[in-house]
Amino acid sequence: MNISGQPYRTIWLGDDGWTVEIIDQTRLPHVFEVVALRSLDDAAHAIRAMLVRGAPLIGATAAYGMALAMREDASDAGLANAYTVLNSTRPTAVNLRWALDDMRKRLRDQAQDSRAAIAYARAAAVSDEDVEINSAIGDHGLEVIRAIHEASSGNGPVNILTHCNAGWLATVDWGTALAPIYKAHNLGIPVHVWADETRPRNQGAALTAWELGQHGVPHAVIADNAGGHLMQHGMVDLCITGTDRTAASGDVANKIGTYLKALAARDNDIPFYVGLPSPKSTGPCRTGSVISPSRSGIRKRSPIYRAKRKMVTWCRCN
Amino acid sequence: MNISGQPYRTIWLGDDGWTVEIIDQTRLPHVFEVVALRSLDDAAHAIRAMLVRGAPLIGATAAYGMALAMREDASDAGLANAYTVLNSTRPTAVNLRWALDDMRKRLRDQAQDSRAAIAYARAAAVSDEDVEINSAIGDHGLEVIRAIHEASSGNGPVNILTHCNAGWLATVDWGTALAPIYKAHNLGIPVHVWADETRPRNQGAALTAWELGQHGVPHAVIADNAGGHLMQHGMVDLCITGTDRTAASGDVANKIGTYLKALAARDNDIPFYVGLPSPKSTGPCRTGSVISPSRSGIRKRSPIYRAKRKMVTWCRCN
Repeated sequence: MNISGQPYRTIWLGDDGWTVEIIDQTRLPHVFEVVALRSLDDAAHAIRAMLVRGAPLIGATAAYGMALAMREDASDAGLANAYTVLNSTRPTAVNLRWALDDMRKRLRDQAQDSRAAIAYARAAAVSDEDVEINSAIGDHGLEVIRAIHEASSGNGPVNILTHCNAGWLATVDWGTALAPIYKAHNLGIPVHVWADETRPRNQGAALTAWELGQHGVPHAVIADNAGGHLMQHGMVDLCITGTDRTAASGDVANKIGTYLKALAARDNDIPFYVGLPSPKSTGPCRTGSVISPSRSGIRKRSPIYRAKRKMVTWCRCN
Repeated sequence: MNISGQPYRTIWLGDDGWTVEIIDQTRLPHVFEVVALRSLDDAAHAIRAMLVRGAPLIGATAAYGMALAMREDASDAGLANAYTVLNSTRPTAVNLRWALDDMRKRLRDQAQDSRAAIAYARAAAVSDEDVEINSAIGDHGLEVIRAIHEASSGNGPVNILTHCNAGWLATVDWGTALAPIYKAHNLGIPVHVWADETRPRNQGAALTAWELGQHGVPHAVIADNAGGHLMQHGMVDLCITGTDRTAASGDVANKIGTYLKALAARDNDIPFYVGLPSPKSTGPCRTGSVISPSRSGIRKRSPIYRAKRKMVTWCRCN
């Protein structure tokens, strides 16, 4: 997506061909600063201190962190150490573990002097795959927005409520929840986003509003308390959120407070969708009950969050 | 209730017998400062700038504001002016209008030289009546808390979630939503309060937590997003809120976000009560639909907010 009119991803290689560059998301929206990662420790710090966040971007950063680690020490001990260090940075991020397992499997039978190059190539592929997945989510969701727009006969924009940040800043590009919104906006379909502030860490106010603003998408930040009221008064056409983890049952766990908005959507007959990249649906959880309660708004055994299993890239959840 | 072990009301006469003293609630919880009101303008500023807030306390402050005005100018023009000035300070506060109408009716047929004394006496009566009403709310609600405590066989405290501030700071004393909690705590029934932060103005974090802490009631401030999650995990036994206005139908309008908690309570089969002083139920609204939408979490035509009409001082709403 765009920053000040220039296209960006959230993670890329520097001009030297090996330094990994990221946006320090802890400083947004007030300061836009690019940070260079030059070591395993730099990458681990970037994840742990939330310079990067969002499950897909954490996965890509971990993959590049393995590549940086292989430049420093490509021995079997170095590989094991890099896995351990990176895996401890964000235990709740399933994409982190998924990226590390994938990378270790690809590297351990390779000659040490080839490991760094293989790791860089794989990290680039992980990033590109994430962009492709999110673009596909956007294409699916675009049709939902288009249908609402066409049904409304052009009466103003499609009003979409989202919670937390599941935009392009949370991924390598496009985002999950916001990908359909960017696709619609780029095609000239009028959209307007209600961005939940998302207490206690304010990802909606700090990140979602910033990235929508940089790309020129009309939006307003609202207190988390306001969404239900807007839904009661016909000011929300559609809710879209991301998901931190998705159980095999179709239950999703997302940022604290998502559940309250899903209840209000159900009470007001407003469609509630989750933008769902497939890696998250292949985790070990069979039901929502084992998903980290500290960060989730999990709803167990309720149809509101129960997605159809086969619709893994785009699910209507109520 | 107590501040640093000393009993306080939120509004009282100074030692000179005519100055009106209040707590500047905009400075809580960081600074406890008593402010003296010595004129109509002082009283109007205190309401407009939210030094005092909460419908019952606004009503009492308006009554004392009329008394201060009568000291300055007890003519018919002075009475009309005081009514107009005070009535414009917080158009959404029904107790304000109610107190002003009552006071004007009592003063307009009186001799000018007796109006100030009559107004002071009436303001004191308005204050005392508010304390009585809230104490009665507390007695009714105490029985709800006691029943939950007895049913739990002593397994830890009764966990009560509240939204915004409907404690003694919002009234002259006791509060509406919090009165039952103070009564239970004073009798040794173990209670623990989840105080919603209450964005965007943080009345829960700044006021509810402060007053509970001063009185020694165990509590924790939570992000507004967290309440549904706590309910899903059996950590809430009871919800109690206040109400800004109550329609004749029994619909209540309260701080933005109340609706979301009521939905979550219904979804988890947790009792949701509103502490309801009777003056608010005698307003002109016959349904919730005309209640100010900008401050309300109104739910029209939903049984969740529909209280029984005759239970005007204490209603179970789901």
